[in-house]
Amino acid sequence: MKKNIRIIDIAKEAGVSIGTVDRVLHERSEVSSETKERILKIIKDFDYHPNIIARSLASKKIITFASLTPWFSDKDSYWAKPQEGIEKAIDQVKQFGVRLKQFYFKMDDSDTFTTAAEKILELSPDGVLLAPWAKREALKFTQALLEKGIPFIFIDSTLKEATPISFIVQNSSQSGYLAAKLLDYGIKEQSLILLVHVTREIDNVTHLLQREKGFLDYFETRKGRKHRIIKIEISENENELDAKLQEMGLALNDIDAVFVTNSKVHQVVSCFKDLIQGPKIIGYDLISRNIELLNLGKIDFLICQKPEKQGFIAINLLFDYIVKKEKVQSENYTPIDIITKENIDYYSSV
Amino acid sequence: MKKNIRIIDIAKEAGVSIGTVDRVLHERSEVSSETKERILKIIKDFDYHPNIIARSLASKKIITFASLTPWFSDKDSYWAKPQEGIEKAIDQVKQFGVRLKQFYFKMDDSDTFTTAAEKILELSPDGVLLAPWAKREALKFTQALLEKGIPFIFIDSTLKEATPISFIVQNSSQSGYLAAKLLDYGIKEQSLILLVHVTREIDNVTHLLQREKGFLDYFETRKGRKHRIIKIEISENENELDAKLQEMGLALNDIDAVFVTNSKVHQVVSCFKDLIQGPKIIGYDLISRNIELLNLGKIDFLICQKPEKQGFIAINLLFDYIVKKEKVQSENYTPIDIITKENIDYYSSV
Repeated sequence: MKKNIRIIDIAKEAGVSIGTVDRVLHERSEVSSETKERILKIIKDFDYHPNIIARSLASKKIITFASLTPWFSDKDSYWAKPQEGIEKAIDQVKQFGVRLKQFYFKMDDSDTFTTAAEKILELSPDGVLLAPWAKREALKFTQALLEKGIPFIFIDSTLKEATPISFIVQNSSQSGYLAAKLLDYGIKEQSLILLVHVTREIDNVTHLLQREKGFLDYFETRKGRKHRIIKIEISENENELDAKLQEMGLALNDIDAVFVTNSKVHQVVSCFKDLIQGPKIIGYDLISRNIELLNLGKIDFLICQKPEKQGFIAINLLFDYIVKKEKVQSENYTPIDIITKENIDYYSSV
Repeated sequence: MKKNIRIIDIAKEAGVSIGTVDRVLHERSEVSSETKERILKIIKDFDYHPNIIARSLASKKIITFASLTPWFSDKDSYWAKPQEGIEKAIDQVKQFGVRLKQFYFKMDDSDTFTTAAEKILELSPDGVLLAPWAKREALKFTQALLEKGIPFIFIDSTLKEATPISFIVQNSSQSGYLAAKLLDYGIKEQSLILLVHVTREIDNVTHLLQREKGFLDYFETRKGRKHRIIKIEISENENELDAKLQEMGLALNDIDAVFVTNSKVHQVVSCFKDLIQGPKIIGYDLISRNIELLNLGKIDFLICQKPEKQGFIAINLLFDYIVKKEKVQSENYTPIDIITKENIDYYSSV
């Protein structure tokens, strides 16, 4: 519960009019020193802070934020979640004149990123929230924002060459490292491990590469375990994994463990659906197809990061920076939550 | 960021006095219907809710809460954490006339529970927050509170025979079940598993018994794994575990895995300190001695439940029920968080 003390409460307590309290707050001298002291004491006792937001409200200026995030086709997509947080936060600040224009790009088509970025530059908003998925295109865009003096904030991943006012991300390599530790804990020595990227543009997606790096780093420190790790990139086509394994002379049931670097883990699980005893599988994110497979015991662990919170916090940081003119924390790391069939019902996603 | 719209903001927006807004809010009819409509529209647009709390403030009544929780000797004890949450919450509601009287009992001495309970009954507070550790004594106490019409709320554990207005707990048997799953995942078949209670009054401590039940339930469903599970109760004496094992003809290095049902897991780890390769160990709670051992790789997993939040939420629920006269949710489950060396730096304990 937040403190919600208003000028009227202080006035009541002091037995004076609101105007008198207001004069004390603005240090105009038409108040007797005795009354002034009484009012200042009440202000201190109540821990009252004059409301900056109400001032911005009075100015009636419209502030425009723009968001640029991956397009999603249905509510169960991962990207629906940060979106929810963004909209919830905007709903709370809209009364202070903040408006949001939403732009989207297609994850496997970086041209759509560039087109949306151009529209945002044309709009010239007061601040931008973006997921910098297409690395090259995102760098070009943030450079243009910088030149126009428009502050921006990253969610989901960050680019070390850019200068956002803040970012809200999971430490990707650490989460990959944890995934490796959890898999290694559950498999015997000399296992065959599959590392799967389900994306068509892996070289342009920094944080998936970082998850891969963390995963491989863990096994570097465990050379005694002598596992064999195979890296495979597939698109969202169900038969591709099987075909690629066959090319390498491997079958699905040779695989002991699987790490999928994003929320598409459900697709990889379905490749193994005809096996009675599938491999240990770890992937990312609580989208409903993944939750279903977790509950069926087909996925062992899901690593989560409270995506709603990412969107929610990002909008609030932009608001603090642009409207309230406050300093904001530049690095914000989301949790690396471990979700299993046994604790999912008690997990709060926000 | 919370909405913080005040009557003065509405008055400004409508171009009327505060008195006029107040008349509309209290449905007094001295306002022209045109002005009234304009004000009501602004109230709706701003999503303004009249401040119940300010009313209670105006009444100047003192509300007394009492807390009854385990005594702790230093800041690193588990019980310092709910305490922090309690004090933080009280700090926020004290401006509305709420005062807290704190009472403590010694965990292994149920007489101290009864003595504290009697003092609370004498005080006759407006509401009580308690950790019902000593089951028999706690039931007697809540019965007396019920007779006096004093509402109470449980944290940490609950008693199914009592009628609190609400409880905030972890699902203990589910957390024991998860502990079993995590251990089982990392050990080979036919392992020797130790289940350790570090407490002197196990039969009077419901939630530790529930953790044990959940743990054993998991292995009931996995009979194919053929582990041997040994249950041991020890006090906080370092040599006791070794002695008890010897009585059974077992040595420390026969043990493959250990489940400690509370935050005293650090003590059990220190029994194994002379072994090069100790057993897999899982226990509870982020106290600093446990964190240290987790980071050294001596503890594999800690199950956590955001204890600060338990205390914080409990006070706020009492406040909502007693001061704001709101209905409160009667069952509140805290998360069953899995903490490892790899994700601890990103874990938010509140």
